[in-house]
Amino acid sequence: MSSDALELPLPAGMRDLLPDEAASREAAARAMLESFELFGYRVVRLPVFEFADVVERGLGATEHSDVLRFVEPESGEVAVLRPDMTPQVARIIATRMRGRPPPYRLAYEGSVVRRRSGRAKKHRQIAQVGVELAGAPARESELELLVVVARALRASGLERFTIDLSDAGIVRALVADADPTLAAQVTAALARKDEAELRDLTPRLAHGSALLELVRVQGGEDAVAQTTSLLAGTPAADAAARLASLYRRATSAQIGATLSVDPAEVRGFAYYTGATFGIYTDGLGFSLGGGGRYDDLLARFGAPMSAAGLAVDLDALERALAHAGVSRAVDRRVVVVGPSDAPVLATLRERGVVAVASASLDVATEYARAWGYALVLDDRTVHEVARGASQVARDGEDGLACVLRVLKGTR
Amino acid sequence: MSSDALELPLPAGMRDLLPDEAASREAAARAMLESFELFGYRVVRLPVFEFADVVERGLGATEHSDVLRFVEPESGEVAVLRPDMTPQVARIIATRMRGRPPPYRLAYEGSVVRRRSGRAKKHRQIAQVGVELAGAPARESELELLVVVARALRASGLERFTIDLSDAGIVRALVADADPTLAAQVTAALARKDEAELRDLTPRLAHGSALLELVRVQGGEDAVAQTTSLLAGTPAADAAARLASLYRRATSAQIGATLSVDPAEVRGFAYYTGATFGIYTDGLGFSLGGGGRYDDLLARFGAPMSAAGLAVDLDALERALAHAGVSRAVDRRVVVVGPSDAPVLATLRERGVVAVASASLDVATEYARAWGYALVLDDRTVHEVARGASQVARDGEDGLACVLRVLKGTR
Repeated sequence: MSSDALELPLPAGMRDLLPDEAASREAAARAMLESFELFGYRVVRLPVFEFADVVERGLGATEHSDVLRFVEPESGEVAVLRPDMTPQVARIIATRMRGRPPPYRLAYEGSVVRRRSGRAKKHRQIAQVGVELAGAPARESELELLVVVARALRASGLERFTIDLSDAGIVRALVADADPTLAAQVTAALARKDEAELRDLTPRLAHGSALLELVRVQGGEDAVAQTTSLLAGTPAADAAARLASLYRRATSAQIGATLSVDPAEVRGFAYYTGATFGIYTDGLGFSLGGGGRYDDLLARFGAPMSAAGLAVDLDALERALAHAGVSRAVDRRVVVVGPSDAPVLATLRERGVVAVASASLDVATEYARAWGYALVLDDRTVHEVARGASQVARDGEDGLACVLRVLKGTR
Repeated sequence: MSSDALELPLPAGMRDLLPDEAASREAAARAMLESFELFGYRVVRLPVFEFADVVERGLGATEHSDVLRFVEPESGEVAVLRPDMTPQVARIIATRMRGRPPPYRLAYEGSVVRRRSGRAKKHRQIAQVGVELAGAPARESELELLVVVARALRASGLERFTIDLSDAGIVRALVADADPTLAAQVTAALARKDEAELRDLTPRLAHGSALLELVRVQGGEDAVAQTTSLLAGTPAADAAARLASLYRRATSAQIGATLSVDPAEVRGFAYYTGATFGIYTDGLGFSLGGGGRYDDLLARFGAPMSAAGLAVDLDALERALAHAGVSRAVDRRVVVVGPSDAPVLATLRERGVVAVASASLDVATEYARAWGYALVLDDRTVHEVARGASQVARDGEDGLACVLRVLKGTR
């Protein structure tokens, strides 16, 4: 069969989710969205492709090359598979939702397609959930987003994670006076954490030595103090003070995440203008997502207002949950030996138990093992497939009652 | 603001769902998928685009022109935004799931992009949920699919709908001996229900007069009898007998839908080989979805086995539910006048009530009206925004208890 699989390749970066993976990811996404909802974030649905002119507003020059484009046949215009949902949310705020009073609290779930930055630049389909908060005061909205995402991650089952705080204004202020090419090189080297290149480039910046030292600063209150002192007297002093203030407010709000500052971090999209967030799993190397403040983006859609948002990568969350041993398997599944119109099937389904029919005990057992059914019901005997055990219905019990009793015991 | 909207167009056939629409569609989709799950259908997630060579297996010649293609930059291969998820499900059955014992019961949710057949041939993003049943005996699996979809539609809140049964073998057998160009013209005219053209074309077919009469046959037991008698002695007699048998078995199974036969119906994809299903809302003109048997498709992926499936268009379902007056608005939403860290907010959220803070009663009331919040809590007074009424907390009650009491009363 492997030759069939080889003949049916998927484009690089695309993958299927088999039932267990799909169920687990769906449960995590659902828990996050329900948590977002409790904070007033309302879910919108946005098209999978849009005109490049609209979706690419706010992307930086290098980001344009990471987008998957095609010519939309009706219009002859260039369309893109969305690399990011934030510009789409900005678009609907600026158009169809414009009459509503702020703040705009919106949530979304969906796939984006983009090249991975950094390493192998393959396009990848990334499933995300996210929130955007527009038209609220900056100080309040950053803290709200941190509270909301921390609560949602805990709701998904993840207990330990770190949120890295930075501020896009720090690096931007430090390279603001430099030649644009140099500024772009420095920014790219920071994104790659390429210290060797930074040692070459930073001497050409007015505050290059501060920037070079900043790269190694990361952590809690000590890192905040170091950032403040390194950037005192530089054009980045204001951004550093903003970062220190956010760190302290978030720490005292006890949002339930480890907090850390990473002041030279350059993350995500060029449209970030202030605080940025990176979410990491404790003990694992990968990012779960992130976001930041983007106060200029809505103006590009004709509705100037401050805004911030963040998104969580559902595949990364899934890996983090698996690593943390969080299992969401709901194993209320029974194969019934008998005809497909046996009344017990309908009764089990009414009780919320997944039920299918099978012709014989052997076939039922094989099916149960392969498809994740815990129980096989054969007349009045319940076979616990994984445990190799079986229970016969007690006096006065029929098969249905026995299944329900066994399910209750295994929950 | 409308000029902004005009400057931010969406590609033809794409649309946004605002919060109420998104919530309503999500609830319907969730209800359908949970119902599918109870029958053992397990949800898989499939990529939004794939190589044309894979996804287009099984599509007919005319269908290829309805697909949105682009060159995938990594490979230089032609990729398509999937026009249909059935070939993707066939692909994973034939590859990653091949080791599991049949029957394969799989469900999916996602968007497809295709041109609408018939009228304006614009691409359209269609959100679907669907099920596929592969490797089960034909007679059983068709009835199972009808039971499953009828149950799922009722779970979504839709009570009255019709399932039209046909059989792709009827028309195929009647045009099998004709010149391929004529066969294609007849099939296309049937799909358009173009009786004038059919009157021109059918005299050139061996059993053209039977086919022409068949176009007007539709309905219940009488239509079944007419179909059988019209097709007696033609190459379509076997397919007609199959259709009659399915109609009778489905009728006696009392699946909770009105059943009808439409023997000259040509629907959906070229890969259908037997029974086909069309789902219609009683009293409304549009189709909610459909499907059919496709016994040859899996062989094209290297895993020959019989299969059938069907999909429901979520936008159409949404319109049908709205027309039927089914409302799923869960209006447990409160705006609290006070600071954003007021403890009552956290307590309300723990109780599953959506809660946001607002600075003053006026702002809170405006926000509540625009964003669908039923209640505003100001100290110990609960304002029922839509009704213009208010209730003060009783003796011994605080604001929280008052909100919970009022919510209980409005449920």
